[in-house]
Amino acid sequence: MDTKEKYVIGLDFGTDSCRALVVDARNGAEKSTGVCLYPRWKTGLYSDPSTNRYRQHPLDYVEAMREAVHEAVSQLSSDETAAICGLSFDTTGSTPALTDANGIPLALLPEFAEDPDAMFILWKDHMAVREAEQINALVKERGLDYLMYEGGTYSSEWVWAKVLHVLKTNSKIRDIACSWVEHCDWITGLVTGNTQPESIYRSRCAAGHKAMWHERWGLPSAEFLQELHPRLADMLPHLFTETHTCGVKAGTLTDEWAGQLGIPAGIAVSVGAIDAHMGAVGASVAPGVLVRIIGTSTCDIMVARKEEIGGRCISGICGQVNGSVLPGYIGFEAGQSAFGDIYAWFSQMLSWPLQFVSDKEEKKRIQKNILDELTRAVELSEPSPSSVVALDWMNGRRTPDADQNVKGMIAGLTLGSSAPDIYRALVEATAFGSRRIVEHMQAQGLRIDSVNAIGGISKKAPFVMQVLADVMNMPIRVIRSEQACALGAAMFAAVAAGIYSDVSEAILHMGSDVEMEYKPEPERVKVYEELYRKYLELTKTATNLSLVV
Amino acid sequence: MDTKEKYVIGLDFGTDSCRALVVDARNGAEKSTGVCLYPRWKTGLYSDPSTNRYRQHPLDYVEAMREAVHEAVSQLSSDETAAICGLSFDTTGSTPALTDANGIPLALLPEFAEDPDAMFILWKDHMAVREAEQINALVKERGLDYLMYEGGTYSSEWVWAKVLHVLKTNSKIRDIACSWVEHCDWITGLVTGNTQPESIYRSRCAAGHKAMWHERWGLPSAEFLQELHPRLADMLPHLFTETHTCGVKAGTLTDEWAGQLGIPAGIAVSVGAIDAHMGAVGASVAPGVLVRIIGTSTCDIMVARKEEIGGRCISGICGQVNGSVLPGYIGFEAGQSAFGDIYAWFSQMLSWPLQFVSDKEEKKRIQKNILDELTRAVELSEPSPSSVVALDWMNGRRTPDADQNVKGMIAGLTLGSSAPDIYRALVEATAFGSRRIVEHMQAQGLRIDSVNAIGGISKKAPFVMQVLADVMNMPIRVIRSEQACALGAAMFAAVAAGIYSDVSEAILHMGSDVEMEYKPEPERVKVYEELYRKYLELTKTATNLSLVV
Repeated sequence: MDTKEKYVIGLDFGTDSCRALVVDARNGAEKSTGVCLYPRWKTGLYSDPSTNRYRQHPLDYVEAMREAVHEAVSQLSSDETAAICGLSFDTTGSTPALTDANGIPLALLPEFAEDPDAMFILWKDHMAVREAEQINALVKERGLDYLMYEGGTYSSEWVWAKVLHVLKTNSKIRDIACSWVEHCDWITGLVTGNTQPESIYRSRCAAGHKAMWHERWGLPSAEFLQELHPRLADMLPHLFTETHTCGVKAGTLTDEWAGQLGIPAGIAVSVGAIDAHMGAVGASVAPGVLVRIIGTSTCDIMVARKEEIGGRCISGICGQVNGSVLPGYIGFEAGQSAFGDIYAWFSQMLSWPLQFVSDKEEKKRIQKNILDELTRAVELSEPSPSSVVALDWMNGRRTPDADQNVKGMIAGLTLGSSAPDIYRALVEATAFGSRRIVEHMQAQGLRIDSVNAIGGISKKAPFVMQVLADVMNMPIRVIRSEQACALGAAMFAAVAAGIYSDVSEAILHMGSDVEMEYKPEPERVKVYEELYRKYLELTKTATNLSLVV
Repeated sequence: MDTKEKYVIGLDFGTDSCRALVVDARNGAEKSTGVCLYPRWKTGLYSDPSTNRYRQHPLDYVEAMREAVHEAVSQLSSDETAAICGLSFDTTGSTPALTDANGIPLALLPEFAEDPDAMFILWKDHMAVREAEQINALVKERGLDYLMYEGGTYSSEWVWAKVLHVLKTNSKIRDIACSWVEHCDWITGLVTGNTQPESIYRSRCAAGHKAMWHERWGLPSAEFLQELHPRLADMLPHLFTETHTCGVKAGTLTDEWAGQLGIPAGIAVSVGAIDAHMGAVGASVAPGVLVRIIGTSTCDIMVARKEEIGGRCISGICGQVNGSVLPGYIGFEAGQSAFGDIYAWFSQMLSWPLQFVSDKEEKKRIQKNILDELTRAVELSEPSPSSVVALDWMNGRRTPDADQNVKGMIAGLTLGSSAPDIYRALVEATAFGSRRIVEHMQAQGLRIDSVNAIGGISKKAPFVMQVLADVMNMPIRVIRSEQACALGAAMFAAVAAGIYSDVSEAILHMGSDVEMEYKPEPERVKVYEELYRKYLELTKTATNLSLVV
C-alpha cells in the first residue's frame, strides 16, 4: 500500500436515511459524514402501518444520497475530495423493486410514479404473508433444497414473496414488470451506468440470503416459478445465475453521477450488500468472533472457513451463504426478533397509569426516564436463581428455528415481584436468547469465542451489556465507530479500488478500535448458569403450549 | 317458633377486629352492630412481619368484645336488650394458644404477659414451616391416615405445627404448658365459665380441619405425638376425643360476663367455629350451592349429605369434616391462595413509575384509582381466545392439591400486550382457578349448581364477578349481608337458644336476601371455554417446571 492519501466513501442506506461516510483508507480514520432523511418517506407517503405496507420511492434514495454525499464532501478540502478513489453501498434488505426491461424501477416511469407497488418494498413490509406461505408449501411439496441455507422457512420479508404479491394483486404492474432488483444492486448499477437486468452486478449477500440463490442451483427453476405464477417464470431470463461478493469492482462512477455527487469520475464502485453484513465487516468480523448488531432486535453475523464446516448445513439459522460477509468464508446470519423492543414494551406497559398525570411535561419526562430508573433500581440487586424468569419471544423467534407465531412469557411471579424484578428478568431473557443462539451454533461445530457489538443498545445500555457478557460467559467488545455499516462499505470500496488485496487486509488497517470491553464476572456467571437452565426449561415447555406456538 | 321478639348475637372475631351483630331471630333483620379493633394488635405489638410472626394477646379479644357488644347494645331499647336470648362466636383459625392446667392462655399469667409465644398464634403466622414439614414427614413415614381429610398436607398455619414450634423454641413455656385451645373454643368457654381443658367444648370445625381430629381416630395417637415432641404427648390427656358441632349449647352466659357485656345472664351460648364456615351458613349454604368468600384470597365452602359421597375422601382439597359447616352434612373447605391480592399486586407493580410524580396527592389519587381505570379499559373489550393467559399461583396454590411453592405466570405476551390486556388475563386467571376447583370437586361426585358469594370483591368488583359467572358458567348470587360470618354465628345462637330445631330452619327464616345475581352470558361462555383450555394447559405445563414448583 502506498502512503499517498486515499479516501473511500461508504454509503449506508438505512430504514429512514442515507448516510455517507468518508474514510481514510490508510488507517480507517472517519474524515466526514453526511446524513439525509428520505424526503417522501419521512412524511409517511406510500406506507400504511395498519396493513404493514412500507414502500420507498427510488427518488428518495437518489435525492438523499446526493444530499448526504454533498454534506460529507463539503467538509473536505479539494485535495481531499480529489483523493476519493472508491465507493460502496450497503442497504436494507430484502428491499426489492420490480423493473421494466431496462432495469428501471417502475416508479421512475411517469405512469407508475405514484403507485406504491412500483416502488422499493422495504424489508419490514409484511403484506406478502400468504405468498410466503405459498412458497413454503411448494418447496415442501416438491421436496426441494431451496430453503436449506435460508433457515428452512421463506419469509414474507423476502424478495420472491414480495414480487409474487405484487404480481398477484396489481394487474397493471403484472403486465409491464420484466425483472426485479434489490436496492443494494440497483443503486450500485445506477452510479456505474449498468442497470440492465441481465448484466447488472447482483450481490451474493442479498441473493443468497433472500432469493433462494445458491451456487449449486442458481435461482429457483423456471418450473418452480411457473407454479407460483407464470409471470415469475417469465422474469427468469431477465434475472441471473451468477452473483458477486463484495469488494468485486462492479464498475466505475459515471461522469454524470460524479457530477451529481461532486466526487471524482471513474473511481471504483464495489458490489454492494445488505447493511448488517457490511456492519459485521465494519465491526471486524473474523472466525470465532460473533458480530451482534444490538438494537430493537439483534442481527448476529459470523463467518467460518468452508473447510471448517465442510459442506454441512447449519440448521435453524436465518441464512448461510458462501461469501456473503467475507469473500472466501461462509457467512451466517441469525438474530433475535426483539431485544431492546422488549424493554421498550415493558416501559410502555408500565407507563399506563401516567396517562392520568395532569402535568403533561412531567408525564413525558417520567415516561422517558422509566428504563433508566428501572436500570438504576436493578443495578442495586444481584441476580438470584429463584427470581422471575421470562421468555423473550414477544415478537416471535428468529433463531434458532424461526417462528413468527410464538409468544413471550413471564414465569416465577409472586405477590412480591416488583417492576424492577420483572425488568431484570426481561433483560436476562434477552441475554438468554442470545446465549441460546450461540450454543445452537456451537453445537453444530461453529467456533465462537467472543462478541463484537454494535448498535444502539451496545453503546447506551451498560447494564444490559454486562448481563449479556455474564450470561454468555464471553467477553463483549463494543466497537467505537457509530457507523459500522458505512465503515464496512468503505472497506469494500478500498478493496475494489485496489488499495487492499482483500477485505481482511482492509479490516486490519481500517478496523475501528474498541471503546469498551465487558468481561464476564465469575460469581454472576454461576448464578446465570442456573437461571439459564430454567430459561431453557421454559423454552422447551413453551414450545408445547398451544397458547405460545 | 313463637312470635315474641327474640334477639340473638353473632360475635365475629376477624383478623383485626371484633364485630357484634344483633339479629332479630324471627326474620334475620340486622338490628345493630358494634365493631372494635384489637387495641394491642393495631399498634403492631407482639408481631413481626419480617419473620411471619403474628400474635394476638387474649386481652385484645376480651376488650374488643366488650366494646363491640356495648356499642351494638347501646343502639337497642332496654326491652330489646332483654330479648337477647342467645350468643355464638366465630373466629379466625387455626388460632391457638397454649394454656396452663386450668385452660388459661399463658399470656394471662403475669409472668408470660409479654411473651408472644404465650399468646394466640394468629392463623397467618408462618413461623412453624419446619414443624409442619416434620409432621408431614412423620405421617408419611408411618403411613397414617391423619391427613386424608385435611388435603394431604399439614400446614404451618395449623395448631399442631404452631404448638410444636413454641415447645421447641421456648423452654419456659415448654415447662409450664399443659394444653392448648383454639380461639373460638376459648372465648366460648370463657363466657360460659368453663375453660377447663378436659371439659371445655371443642369445635368440630376447628378440630376436624386443623388438628387432624376425625371421628374414626379422635386426635393423633400418643405415640405419634411423642415422636414429634414428648411434651406434646403429655398434653393429650388434657385435650379431647369428642368434638361438638355448632348449634350445640356449650353452656349459658355467666353472671360475670353478662355484667361485663351488658346483656342478660343465663342465655344460651352455642359452640363456636372458624369464621369462613359460619360465613357459609350466613350465606345460606346448602347442598349444590358453593359459598365463596371472595376477597384478597377465597375460601370456598360447600356441604353434601354423607350418603351422597359415602365414606369417600375427596382428594386435593383443604378439608372435609362431618358437621363442620352444617350438622348432619359433610363440610368441605377449599380456596384460592390469592384472588383480589393478584389485582392488588398488579396495581402495585404498575404504580412503580408513579414514585416520580411530584404532586404527592395526585400520585396517591392515581394509585388508588388504577384498578378502577383498568376495569373501565377492559370493560370496553370482549374476551379473545388469542389473548394473554395467566396462571393465578402468585401466592402458591391452595386447591386442588395445596402447594405453597408454585408460582404465577403470564403467557401469550406480544409487543402489543397492554396493561389492560394483562389485567384482563389476571381477572380471567382468578376465575379459571375458581372453575378448576369446582371441576375438581364435581369430578369426585360433588354436585355444584350455583354460587353464593360474600366478601369484598363480590360487592365491589362487578366486572370480576361477571367474568367469574361467565367462566364458571353458573349463576352467582351476591348475598346482601355485609356481615355474613356474624349472621351465621347468630343463626347458631338461635339454634342453641332453642328458637329453631336446626340451622337449616334458621337459614330459612334468618337468611340474608340476594342483592345481585350475575348470570352467565352464552357468547362469552364459549370464548372463556376456549381460554380455559389454554389455562389448563398452562397448569399442567407449569407443574413440570422447576422454576414454578
